[in-house]
Amino acid sequence: MTEELELKENERIDDLQYKGLKVIQNNKGFCFGIDSVILSDFAKNIKDNSRVVDLGTGSGVIGLLLCKKTKLKEIIGIEIQKDVANMAKRSIRLNNLENMFQIVNENINDIFVQGILNKNQYDVVVMNPPYKEVGTGKQNEDEVKLISRHEIKAKLSDFIATASNLLKDKGEVYIVHKPERTIDIMQKMRENKIEPKEMKIVYPYKNIEASLILIKGVKGGKKFFKIMEPLYIYENNGEYTEQIKQIYNENN
Amino acid sequence: MTEELELKENERIDDLQYKGLKVIQNNKGFCFGIDSVILSDFAKNIKDNSRVVDLGTGSGVIGLLLCKKTKLKEIIGIEIQKDVANMAKRSIRLNNLENMFQIVNENINDIFVQGILNKNQYDVVVMNPPYKEVGTGKQNEDEVKLISRHEIKAKLSDFIATASNLLKDKGEVYIVHKPERTIDIMQKMRENKIEPKEMKIVYPYKNIEASLILIKGVKGGKKFFKIMEPLYIYENNGEYTEQIKQIYNENN
Repeated sequence: MTEELELKENERIDDLQYKGLKVIQNNKGFCFGIDSVILSDFAKNIKDNSRVVDLGTGSGVIGLLLCKKTKLKEIIGIEIQKDVANMAKRSIRLNNLENMFQIVNENINDIFVQGILNKNQYDVVVMNPPYKEVGTGKQNEDEVKLISRHEIKAKLSDFIATASNLLKDKGEVYIVHKPERTIDIMQKMRENKIEPKEMKIVYPYKNIEASLILIKGVKGGKKFFKIMEPLYIYENNGEYTEQIKQIYNENN
Repeated sequence: MTEELELKENERIDDLQYKGLKVIQNNKGFCFGIDSVILSDFAKNIKDNSRVVDLGTGSGVIGLLLCKKTKLKEIIGIEIQKDVANMAKRSIRLNNLENMFQIVNENINDIFVQGILNKNQYDVVVMNPPYKEVGTGKQNEDEVKLISRHEIKAKLSDFIATASNLLKDKGEVYIVHKPERTIDIMQKMRENKIEPKEMKIVYPYKNIEASLILIKGVKGGKKFFKIMEPLYIYENNGEYTEQIKQIYNENN
């Protein structure tokens, strides 16, 4: 391990349980959840040689998984928080993925202003944006968690507008979010010329309210929307379902 | 049975399997499906003494069920097709519900023009609108089925605009429709000041694509959207699920 890869205070290395991938996380920061794992699974059928952008990449989990689950050409992760971006960069090196996966430490709202990325060039955008509108949920978290969880630096509408700007015609966007924002997402997609095409609902158990939604949209796509087979996290006995076990173990 | 209740050619009386309710249907017309049954179940918690309108009431099944499942004050069914409206009227008499349930034989787009109904007066609107946009699906059906299934006489946007006009502030609308129109429904609701609040997804089996959606909206409601526990129609062995059996048998 080179000096650059040394862990900083409160950091640890976690096994992603997928083709040997590892990720550096900060015990005091926002740690990845099952949402990142199921989003990367939802997006796994993207075309070979896709150029991909991950908006709000955090510790880089989604990008790391996509590097192994797909035959993408390149992926760029945009992360506003310097320490988090730095941690993601070290995770990329830890997995020897520097040739595919780059991190840009920038606000998603500034990437075109700064000329860092070009418009209408990318095949796929993935995102796991902050779930909470400003002023909702816990407000007394430390700043890193607050920015990861709340729309402080960029709103949902900024994420979707940026995705639309990045994508080629017929390019695809994959989002994981909370059910409560379903309508906002669909509305903002259409306002930005992205047609929602598929939704997958995630239910913790087979007989309770949904906890997450996955939505796929296509820039300039024709109207036709499907609600796919549901995804259940747990069996009644509290074990992971076969669906989740398969997402973790596939091709392991 | 009075003369007026006599069955016409191709008509039959079906048992709704709920508190003795019966409905007259035409073998050659559009016969009710499980969508009407689950919509009336989805709307069963409306407040006592509600004044209700059913837009596009057809044979009246939803209204008949709501008369028995709720303590509504009155329900008005709007049905454009004369023969279908007449059949619904006879079903109402057959069930002795004339004091609660009335049929208006009119296009939903004309009810205010004609002064038949007043705006901002109703607590609840229910609807099972035609599923198909004009020019999609089978076009060679007879006229009665065509009008029941396609947006020939009124579009989805007309249904939702009419619902908004009928409802009081905080009045509720309950819709059953196909997943492919989810986004159109949500968009039209917001354009008409109805906030989508709850969605229930109907899956034929636990592990396949959704076949129907149920959406509840509130006129002037605050933004907060939930995706409720799913509704499954069949078990893997092809039998109705307990959920469906309960909807049919409840309080029988």
